[in-house]
Amino acid sequence: MSGNTFGTIFSITTWGESHGLAVGVVVDGCPAGLPIAAEDIQKELDRRRPGQSIATTQRKEEDRVEILSGIFDGVTTGTPISMIIWNKDASSSAYDAIRNMPRPGHADYTYQAKYGIRDHRGGGRASARETVGRVAAGAIAKKLLSRDGIEIAGYVTELGGIKAHISTSDLSTLRSNAESNPIRCPDQDAAGRMLELLDKVRLEGDSLGGIVEIVAKGVPPGLGEPVFDKLDGDLAKALMSLGAVKAVEIGAGLESARMRGSQMNDPLILKDSRVDFETNNAGGILGGISTGAPIICRIAVKPTPSISRRQRTVDLLSNRPAEIEIKGRHDPAIPPRIVPVAEAMVALVLADHHMRAQSSRL
Amino acid sequence: MSGNTFGTIFSITTWGESHGLAVGVVVDGCPAGLPIAAEDIQKELDRRRPGQSIATTQRKEEDRVEILSGIFDGVTTGTPISMIIWNKDASSSAYDAIRNMPRPGHADYTYQAKYGIRDHRGGGRASARETVGRVAAGAIAKKLLSRDGIEIAGYVTELGGIKAHISTSDLSTLRSNAESNPIRCPDQDAAGRMLELLDKVRLEGDSLGGIVEIVAKGVPPGLGEPVFDKLDGDLAKALMSLGAVKAVEIGAGLESARMRGSQMNDPLILKDSRVDFETNNAGGILGGISTGAPIICRIAVKPTPSISRRQRTVDLLSNRPAEIEIKGRHDPAIPPRIVPVAEAMVALVLADHHMRAQSSRL
Amino acid sequence: MSGNTFGTIFSITTWGESHGLAVGVVVDGCPAGLPIAAEDIQKELDRRRPGQSIATTQRKEEDRVEILSGIFDGVTTGTPISMIIWNKDASSSAYDAIRNMPRPGHADYTYQAKYGIRDHRGGGRASARETVGRVAAGAIAKKLLSRDGIEIAGYVTELGGIKAHISTSDLSTLRSNAESNPIRCPDQDAAGRMLELLDKVRLEGDSLGGIVEIVAKGVPPGLGEPVFDKLDGDLAKALMSLGAVKAVEIGAGLESARMRGSQMNDPLILKDSRVDFETNNAGGILGGISTGAPIICRIAVKPTPSISRRQRTVDLLSNRPAEIEIKGRHDPAIPPRIVPVAEAMVALVLADHHMRAQSSRL
Amino acid sequence: MSGNTFGTIFSITTWGESHGLAVGVVVDGCPAGLPIAAEDIQKELDRRRPGQSIATTQRKEEDRVEILSGIFDGVTTGTPISMIIWNKDASSSAYDAIRNMPRPGHADYTYQAKYGIRDHRGGGRASARETVGRVAAGAIAKKLLSRDGIEIAGYVTELGGIKAHISTSDLSTLRSNAESNPIRCPDQDAAGRMLELLDKVRLEGDSLGGIVEIVAKGVPPGLGEPVFDKLDGDLAKALMSLGAVKAVEIGAGLESARMRGSQMNDPLILKDSRVDFETNNAGGILGGISTGAPIICRIAVKPTPSISRRQRTVDLLSNRPAEIEIKGRHDPAIPPRIVPVAEAMVALVLADHHMRAQSSRL
Repeated sequence: MSGNTFGTIFSITTWGESHGLAVGVVVDGCPAGLPIAAEDIQKELDRRRPGQSIATTQRKEEDRVEILSGIFDGVTTGTPISMIIWNKDASSSAYDAIRNMPRPGHADYTYQAKYGIRDHRGGGRASARETVGRVAAGAIAKKLLSRDGIEIAGYVTELGGIKAHISTSDLSTLRSNAESNPIRCPDQDAAGRMLELLDKVRLEGDSLGGIVEIVAKGVPPGLGEPVFDKLDGDLAKALMSLGAVKAVEIGAGLESARMRGSQMNDPLILKDSRVDFETNNAGGILGGISTGAPIICRIAVKPTPSISRRQRTVDLLSNRPAEIEIKGRHDPAIPPRIVPVAEAMVALVLADHHMRAQSSRL
Repeated sequence: MSGNTFGTIFSITTWGESHGLAVGVVVDGCPAGLPIAAEDIQKELDRRRPGQSIATTQRKEEDRVEILSGIFDGVTTGTPISMIIWNKDASSSAYDAIRNMPRPGHADYTYQAKYGIRDHRGGGRASARETVGRVAAGAIAKKLLSRDGIEIAGYVTELGGIKAHISTSDLSTLRSNAESNPIRCPDQDAAGRMLELLDKVRLEGDSLGGIVEIVAKGVPPGLGEPVFDKLDGDLAKALMSLGAVKAVEIGAGLESARMRGSQMNDPLILKDSRVDFETNNAGGILGGISTGAPIICRIAVKPTPSISRRQRTVDLLSNRPAEIEIKGRHDPAIPPRIVPVAEAMVALVLADHHMRAQSSRL
Repeated sequence: MSGNTFGTIFSITTWGESHGLAVGVVVDGCPAGLPIAAEDIQKELDRRRPGQSIATTQRKEEDRVEILSGIFDGVTTGTPISMIIWNKDASSSAYDAIRNMPRPGHADYTYQAKYGIRDHRGGGRASARETVGRVAAGAIAKKLLSRDGIEIAGYVTELGGIKAHISTSDLSTLRSNAESNPIRCPDQDAAGRMLELLDKVRLEGDSLGGIVEIVAKGVPPGLGEPVFDKLDGDLAKALMSLGAVKAVEIGAGLESARMRGSQMNDPLILKDSRVDFETNNAGGILGGISTGAPIICRIAVKPTPSISRRQRTVDLLSNRPAEIEIKGRHDPAIPPRIVPVAEAMVALVLADHHMRAQSSRL
Repeated sequence: MSGNTFGTIFSITTWGESHGLAVGVVVDGCPAGLPIAAEDIQKELDRRRPGQSIATTQRKEEDRVEILSGIFDGVTTGTPISMIIWNKDASSSAYDAIRNMPRPGHADYTYQAKYGIRDHRGGGRASARETVGRVAAGAIAKKLLSRDGIEIAGYVTELGGIKAHISTSDLSTLRSNAESNPIRCPDQDAAGRMLELLDKVRLEGDSLGGIVEIVAKGVPPGLGEPVFDKLDGDLAKALMSLGAVKAVEIGAGLESARMRGSQMNDPLILKDSRVDFETNNAGGILGGISTGAPIICRIAVKPTPSISRRQRTVDLLSNRPAEIEIKGRHDPAIPPRIVPVAEAMVALVLADHHMRAQSSRL
């Protein structure tokens, strides 16, 4: 029941603080016999690693994963896979001055309210650094899914109000287009304008929000539990569990509220003698269960709360109004780096439901 | 792990099909000593009952709750509270003709794909009738929360593209304004226009979508688990687990993607010597933990998939294209009736996290 | 997490009090497509029904099961199976006099301590009547298991110190021998002596304890999770969760403490070219995982705490020493009636682990 | 649901193999604000460390715990506590020869059957080395419990058939008597005879089983959930989840099967005006809930399966009968070293139920 574990059969437990010794994850429930190399995991970690471009924080972390258990002779054994990533470039001094002054838009105040104590250095457990473990675990989930032809891709569709025009639905093209620029936006023209705006806003000591879309293809019809553990319910939780996410949409999402039934309903058609859907407003999920059409999720990512501008807060020690300037090193926008994390969360949900579905075959 | 149970400490298990003998719920984990009368539950069930107005289906169900266990001398005993609501006005014949023709926008196809068999009558387990149990359980959660000053209200803020102007933040005014019209929209003028549009669309054999907002006040700072079981994560799952919901927003929601950090961040201020927030873009939750400010959720509700217009589908028996006309009795728009259900889901999440928080006090 | 649900994939939730309106169970996670008739369940309920002989309480309950959901056209649909059994012959008056005087050996005092309130009539939720739901659910689990050739039998091996001589390991012989006498002991001679002793002890206003053995055959090697959710761990919990059970043994059980490694270790042998074990001291489980040999559990069942002799207790109202005489109607020994309940618990554990094992196949 | 996590609120996840890089544990759900020093944990690890005497294996492991997260300024922060213990003296070569020859009484065969692959070195995940994480986590649970006056002690009461005479019920005396000899038996005379027998049996290439008792004092009445998550049910699972345990008894245990109700029932009495029990045959638990009397558990521990005598097995590669001699370094009897592990499991169950009870206070 503890809040640091996610998943029912394929489950992960993350641990660690931003400026502690290390962060890590234990993956439990992965089937035995899956070939896993450290590189499979490293390549996903490298995608979320800081210091990649001006779009990301300048903290330098190698983020080398060490696999401590659960893999033998290059293959999973069915036992827990423990992975650790040491923290190396933690620079905590900037945080001492604001130890008692909660940063607006951050979890400082709420952690303090909940626990009465917190590791204030670099956001502690509330830091985006916690997501390293999710990405490492997600890499294993992706490997498991790809065996059954399930592929996932994420990319930025909007940043600071600039909307991308996504012209293809081919996952590998989308992915390679997205990975070719630091914004991770498959529309190169939009990506250029986003980068320009980001640079400008960063120099103003401010930050941008945006929208990320995650698509999963090859998901067979029938995944998901129909009532509370709906596939979209679990995806919503998985994605909303990322600190900066303020909205989750499935398929037509918010727009569905403005459609008529006759527009929204996806007519069933036959394609190569198999059931398909003329439109996919449902985003691949009906009644909480996959339809076989692509699963489409979108998340609204708030602007980075750590901005260099002076901000108002309260000094919790003296209980007086105060002002802070956040030094540290921060991403001026979160969407580019949240892409691999959001993909990981979608992969974890799908791997879990894949195994759940398998458990109930007669 | 089974998908029909929700919650960790305060948990509910619902059961039953739309046209089966009954629907019901078992509430487990409710503390002993809470006074509960059948009327506490009945008044919430009456709010979601069908047949209330032209805004809702004409199925006539009394929806009288029977409490079978867990309450003794008018007080909870700490043991499971089993509640049953008999189905009375189920009219299944309309469904026989479309037994093998999945209705677009419904879970017919996905249930069939998942289970290979389904109770096709009235949508079976995928029917909105399943939510009766959620509302009954939610009534108990509300009672538990109100002891600690936590109140919840839901209302329609948009229907068929018509937006309401919400002019007050006082919960009881909001609630009484909302409950005074069949749309459950606190803006009477907008409600009138919505009702007009709804009537028109209904006669065209079509349906409308809309947006519902749910607000919780009095939630103390510190509720929620910080990583996966974030308060907003659990709310997102709870609300997305309602069949017609396609998007969940917290606080500024989707709009946060278009804001700068300097706009989005809620400055901390002092109000009566206590920490408060100048704005509440965060919607009462930071890092997954409540801030003490009102919790604000919004859901996008898709238009009712059951429309009387002729629609294209596939006959699963012959594997040929087909057309269907859905007879039955249906709500022309779901938002008015989803209000008490969405409130119930929010109440269940808060009651559970309230108890979780209490468990970890030293 | 709530204590009234058992199982992870194949899970059950029981509810109800001894003298409330009804008792019941919701079975969640049963695969779709399993043929279930009410008689499958009724025949197991009839085995635990009271009033069968002098060996059991004289309370008269028909214990007719009503299936309210989850079964359509005689087949499971994958949705929750809700079953209800109405209480008919509850006679509560005998309990009013002892409302504040906890019966020794009963849960009266501990419920009061835990909840501050309780349904005192007939033991409320702590009554053996709660097990009706377990048996109903267990009947479904048995059906699921028997499809894969897994069969379970339980019987009394000792009562009041009289030990049976079990001369066969054939399950159906064991079962028919056991069911042919009211003690459910396959050794007819011992059964006769047990019955005699039971009658004598009952007339003395006292009660007997005994030992029940449950065997499962046909369990394939590989069921069970190796660390905490060991098959024997889950069996121990399942069986110890029966109120009267004070010890659980697997295989050689307590005797293994007195053996040498060279005696205890089961040599692996080949039988028809397949791995088998020369002895089965392990009771079919090594390292928490089934070996393929028969699974053997034994439980020590304490004597019925409700005896008609005068007993010392404390009046909780006056906080003074008191004496009580328990009237009511009670089994003079629990083992005969616990047999079908213990079988049900073993079936539930095996069905769940069967599905868990199936979930992780690559 | 994954089998490597134990507990609901206070939960632990262990990982690691005997001859892998390290073993470890993540403790989730520990309340914030609890002072924890590495020494608190180390002193418990030292109690289970190998190489302490002739009673234990000669593998040399320092077993130094490193705390990687969750503790800040010497105090728990409420976030996961990750602890790692590196494996240093793993000597795997002895295992290569028997890679395909399952050791009798070990989990070799069942792991192979379940997973199709296993880390065969030193028993891999099935090694008693996995319990290092349990003991580290249990040390934290003990700290939490001792704040509320709950103390736990374990000791050997029988070894190789030699029974100890336990003459005191004072926990600290019991503990210091037990810890004063390598058998961990509080009866020094018996301990001497046990040690003699153990030495003799060891030289014969054989091993001994025994019985360990664990007592918890200061447990308030009211802990435990009454139906499936009974306190004794969870204790039974916790203790049976130790690989060598074949029976779990609570209170009078197996003997209760031979008692009459009039002997077994513990009369309630008043002691210093508070309810107490004249006897404690119930072992401190009635109806799954603590009575306030000492909780008494006993476990039957089988003889060490690793014996140096030649044993029969099957070569899984050739599917032919085979003989093996187990070299490696092994405890000639498990009871002395299982004592701190069994204490840890009891502490984990009590800490969890303590927090669960706290969650439901109105």
